[in-house]
Amino acid sequence: MNIVYLDWAASAIPDAEIIEAVAEITRLFFGNPSSRHYCGRQALDLAGQDRHTLAMLMGCSPGHLIFTSGGTESNNMVLRSFMMKKRKNGLVCSSIEHASLYETALYIKRQGIPVAFPVTGSDGFADPEKIYDAIDENTGAVAVMLVNNETGAIQPLEDIVKAVRTREAEFGSPIHVHTDAVQAFGRIPFDLNSLNVDSAAFSAHKLGGPKGIGALYSRKKLSPLITGGGQEEGLRAGTENTAGIHGFALAAGKRIENMDRELPAAAGLRNKLIGVITSLQGEVLNQGGKGFSPYITAAFFPPVPGEVLARTLNDRGYAVSTGSACSARNKKKTRVLENMGFSSRDAASALRISIGHSTTVQEINSFGEVLAEELEHLRKAAGVVSVGS
Amino acid sequence: MNIVYLDWAASAIPDAEIIEAVAEITRLFFGNPSSRHYCGRQALDLAGQDRHTLAMLMGCSPGHLIFTSGGTESNNMVLRSFMMKKRKNGLVCSSIEHASLYETALYIKRQGIPVAFPVTGSDGFADPEKIYDAIDENTGAVAVMLVNNETGAIQPLEDIVKAVRTREAEFGSPIHVHTDAVQAFGRIPFDLNSLNVDSAAFSAHKLGGPKGIGALYSRKKLSPLITGGGQEEGLRAGTENTAGIHGFALAAGKRIENMDRELPAAAGLRNKLIGVITSLQGEVLNQGGKGFSPYITAAFFPPVPGEVLARTLNDRGYAVSTGSACSARNKKKTRVLENMGFSSRDAASALRISIGHSTTVQEINSFGEVLAEELEHLRKAAGVVSVGS
Repeated sequence: MNIVYLDWAASAIPDAEIIEAVAEITRLFFGNPSSRHYCGRQALDLAGQDRHTLAMLMGCSPGHLIFTSGGTESNNMVLRSFMMKKRKNGLVCSSIEHASLYETALYIKRQGIPVAFPVTGSDGFADPEKIYDAIDENTGAVAVMLVNNETGAIQPLEDIVKAVRTREAEFGSPIHVHTDAVQAFGRIPFDLNSLNVDSAAFSAHKLGGPKGIGALYSRKKLSPLITGGGQEEGLRAGTENTAGIHGFALAAGKRIENMDRELPAAAGLRNKLIGVITSLQGEVLNQGGKGFSPYITAAFFPPVPGEVLARTLNDRGYAVSTGSACSARNKKKTRVLENMGFSSRDAASALRISIGHSTTVQEINSFGEVLAEELEHLRKAAGVVSVGS
Repeated sequence: MNIVYLDWAASAIPDAEIIEAVAEITRLFFGNPSSRHYCGRQALDLAGQDRHTLAMLMGCSPGHLIFTSGGTESNNMVLRSFMMKKRKNGLVCSSIEHASLYETALYIKRQGIPVAFPVTGSDGFADPEKIYDAIDENTGAVAVMLVNNETGAIQPLEDIVKAVRTREAEFGSPIHVHTDAVQAFGRIPFDLNSLNVDSAAFSAHKLGGPKGIGALYSRKKLSPLITGGGQEEGLRAGTENTAGIHGFALAAGKRIENMDRELPAAAGLRNKLIGVITSLQGEVLNQGGKGFSPYITAAFFPPVPGEVLARTLNDRGYAVSTGSACSARNKKKTRVLENMGFSSRDAASALRISIGHSTTVQEINSFGEVLAEELEHLRKAAGVVSVGS
């Protein structure tokens, strides 16, 4: 089946040369990085070089970066580290976080630990004032993502960090700021140092690297989630996935090296996509594009349910989604949009179109044509008079 | 550098065809298995097939098998699941377990939860009676590995399970039996159903598959260690590592398909190795080989320190270790042998030689020659008179 893939936010199409490199490293650097012999040292050295590369690309010290199995594990490690504390263990978690933070925060709340979920505006942006208000003297950590995975909204992290630091000064004790940077790193300009967050989560497969590998930056000491052989400075046990780490570093390097070209190209395609959607009387959240990642567009064609539209488009060979893949198994699939104040009908009409660095204008054009055809059918079926008929 | 690799227990040399297949799956099945479209379904279906394959090879129901990032995570999930319980959370952990169980059990003990570490005999086998005695009415789980990673000793799991079930009947409440099967699966005959354990941990890279992927079998409900998108029936969140899962299934299939040939071949090489070691006045734990995996041989040449001997051999191009790679970063590297009753001098003289399915008789022969040469130097330096001089 010939697929037009427009679900890059769920998982990117991996670069052929990165797949080759991962295979080559698996073949040649097969030693356990903990082994003291040549094969082990060789693997450890390579992982060290890749850690340096990634740290440089992220804007942090290599000593603050550990490798994990992915963004979900990284996010879990931060929240669960605070759960194990006896005091100052309260959490503030924005209500539009990825399931790996939101569901984990809900679990922690069920353990009797105070967790606040400040709502965001219907524009998709967390409100620094609401974050400020949600922090109390028991708050240990605040989690706000950088780019929302369903809407593409770039959160005002600078202002949020300021609000947290003000609270910190008022209460006279540190508050940890964590950001889920999974949809940001390698796609929009990114620098941990200037973000001034305490920790950040990363995933390789979202930017063209392999699945099963990610990273956690933390400049503050966290408790390990997985203990054992003392790998990753005792913060994350388990044999290092050397080949995966290498693929991650290569993919990030490639995205960032090409960002000057890829970012404007993505913005151009996104603008074309917005044009298509609005010409079909659809609504978009990222009007004008300002403040949004160009890689993700949330479109709404009420009353047509997003699930029906997505299925129809998928049947035609256009891979799109209704929101986060990681919410597909949840009962409440529309949590993010409803927590932004959307009615359940509007939230249920959402379609997420997410592009990548190899998405072409031809793909967007043909998607637009098929979208127009299918919408006409579905609207007719729903009794909506379409324009021009 | 031309290396004779004799550290397969740390990580196996991956099969070329498995590396190729993993690359192919990464290329073709790039969708997120949680996505509802064709690319997602295709990936989900493949992971489902691989789960079936592995469950069949392990002798369990596919519904009882979840994928993790490796053996360390699987072992952590079991112990930490009991740590979160309010009652019946005590642990019994054999004193020769892998660091991912032993260090995790120590951590749990520091949280104030009772943990017993019954010692084993100097022969390397856990004693069912000692396990029985260590269980009390608060014991929730017992962990005993199947094949020890430093000695190759196959633990008497059948008798241990019987002892636990007797205790279970005495206390009238269930006790969970977990086994770390990382060094067993794919190398010795293995069947979860007949083992009658409640859970078991697996790793792909130990049997020729990729790093960063493993599995946890559990027929009892455990608490997730990593929450989020509800993957793996809610037991392990995070985008499934489809390509890694496929490599794991292929590697396991290959090992088990070829076991009739590979197991006697390994035993032959192991016997040759024992001959070499004893001819050099070394001692081995696996005398006669009965009750031991043929893939791991612990050798001792006191007073020559294992670290010195291993380094010397590594310099000559023979990759061997002194014990577990996952203990290389720990302060107490000789924990397993000392917990078997070895003196610290004898424990420190240990050399682990672990072979794999592609190890050749030529490699063992040349290893024996170099071992003889280096031992002569080291013994002279240590003032030991070598035989024939």
